[in-house]
Amino acid sequence: MRIGIVAPSTPILPETAERVTGLAAADFPQVELVFHPQCFLSHHHFAGDETVRAGAFLEVANDRAFDALWFARGGYGSCRIAEAVLAGLGPEARGKAYLGYSDAGYMLAGLYRAGFERLAHGPMVGDMRREGGEAAVLRALAWLATQDPAALEPSLGEEPAVAFNITVFSQLLGTPLEPDLAGHVLMLEDVSEHMYRTDRSLFHITGNDRVRRVAGIRLGRCTEVPDNDPDFGASEEEVFRYWCDRASIPYLGRADIGHDAGNKVVPFGRLPAES
Amino acid sequence: MRIGIVAPSTPILPETAERVTGLAAADFPQVELVFHPQCFLSHHHFAGDETVRAGAFLEVANDRAFDALWFARGGYGSCRIAEAVLAGLGPEARGKAYLGYSDAGYMLAGLYRAGFERLAHGPMVGDMRREGGEAAVLRALAWLATQDPAALEPSLGEEPAVAFNITVFSQLLGTPLEPDLAGHVLMLEDVSEHMYRTDRSLFHITGNDRVRRVAGIRLGRCTEVPDNDPDFGASEEEVFRYWCDRASIPYLGRADIGHDAGNKVVPFGRLPAES
Repeated sequence: MRIGIVAPSTPILPETAERVTGLAAADFPQVELVFHPQCFLSHHHFAGDETVRAGAFLEVANDRAFDALWFARGGYGSCRIAEAVLAGLGPEARGKAYLGYSDAGYMLAGLYRAGFERLAHGPMVGDMRREGGEAAVLRALAWLATQDPAALEPSLGEEPAVAFNITVFSQLLGTPLEPDLAGHVLMLEDVSEHMYRTDRSLFHITGNDRVRRVAGIRLGRCTEVPDNDPDFGASEEEVFRYWCDRASIPYLGRADIGHDAGNKVVPFGRLPAES
Repeated sequence: MRIGIVAPSTPILPETAERVTGLAAADFPQVELVFHPQCFLSHHHFAGDETVRAGAFLEVANDRAFDALWFARGGYGSCRIAEAVLAGLGPEARGKAYLGYSDAGYMLAGLYRAGFERLAHGPMVGDMRREGGEAAVLRALAWLATQDPAALEPSLGEEPAVAFNITVFSQLLGTPLEPDLAGHVLMLEDVSEHMYRTDRSLFHITGNDRVRRVAGIRLGRCTEVPDNDPDFGASEEEVFRYWCDRASIPYLGRADIGHDAGNKVVPFGRLPAES
């Protein structure tokens, strides 16, 4: 199978691509990774300007030679191109798998809204650079290449699920990218946000009538939380319980996702029935 | 006239209250400032717990002995008590003036939605501590005590207006605090946010169908913007023009508001007709 890699947000280094290619060759010889050259471009904050980033995404998504599109890395920037990409997707784009998280959530949200069926929140190429990052990359490849159940977030069950970064999810509500999540388990994680910002995002998220139709919320990991001065006075789990309680949204416990090497795969929607 | 001061977000120091009291006594002898003791409390991140903060707000708002409620300071926290406060406001609360900005925007938004008519975005007690802060405090008092037209943001005209912090406004959209801003000039300012965060907030704000019914957006000052690495590649005005253009919202130019001593007063709604 052929997996095309693009960077709708920020660029990766060629050496990261080489390490991931080496890992894939050793463990998944049936997989060919094709890095679009756009992955290595820089344009101020972004991996190329908007025309270049959207163009690269569409080249891979609309090319029947690719079985999957893998997001290179997060950062910030995919919300700037998401609507242009969605408008340019052709029939070849629908059958593919799409895997990413963090800033890639804008694209996954828009694709889910558009009815795409093979979307997942999970590790990206750039996770190779994390401590223990090999495991994250191999997990991503295992899901892309073989739909390995061992790659999946362990709480996934019969209810449809989605997963997002807290801040990204907060900022796509009410935009043309917001999907209908009625009846879904909503898993949320974040990184590098002060606890007062996470609290504020939860006010925004749980105060939304459409979000209140989810089946429940699960809390992934909140990592690298900067110190609050004075101490915020509540942990991320207390923050989630507080706002879920106020909004009468079931708090379902923890989710095994986060900005770390342990980040498990959350396919959007219902898991395929076992054969 | 009597002005009651409360702190729905974070506390102020007694010495700040004393300096503001001294300034008011010299220039506005007709004004009596009454600092609710809650202004000086600390409970983790906040100026007292939620019961205490909401209670202090309601004590002042519902007391006919006060002509105005002045917010002590921003920070974070008023979104946690806004709905409880709104539910507890009695008839005495409606005639008062309310003045604040930044985190106070959650309360002002909810009050505007509830039909309150004397709300304004402008300096708070805590601005005394800024460089040149005396001018900000005197401007606030001039609006509260005499509705001095010199205190007003100079672009204000016939169209109704509102002003908010960018991040606060972004996070109250879709919540029970969001007011109907159809036909309004929406002025926005921020402080201490990376430019990529401001860009992301503008994606969220201008992507909202209800926001797209405003008459136009004006950009206040964005101050203390942390360095972006690499450089974001666009100024705040370019960011505003970009997103307004994409959303077909008229970009109306700059507004004379911000987290600084020059912050002018923006009464919510239409200015009273001149007599």
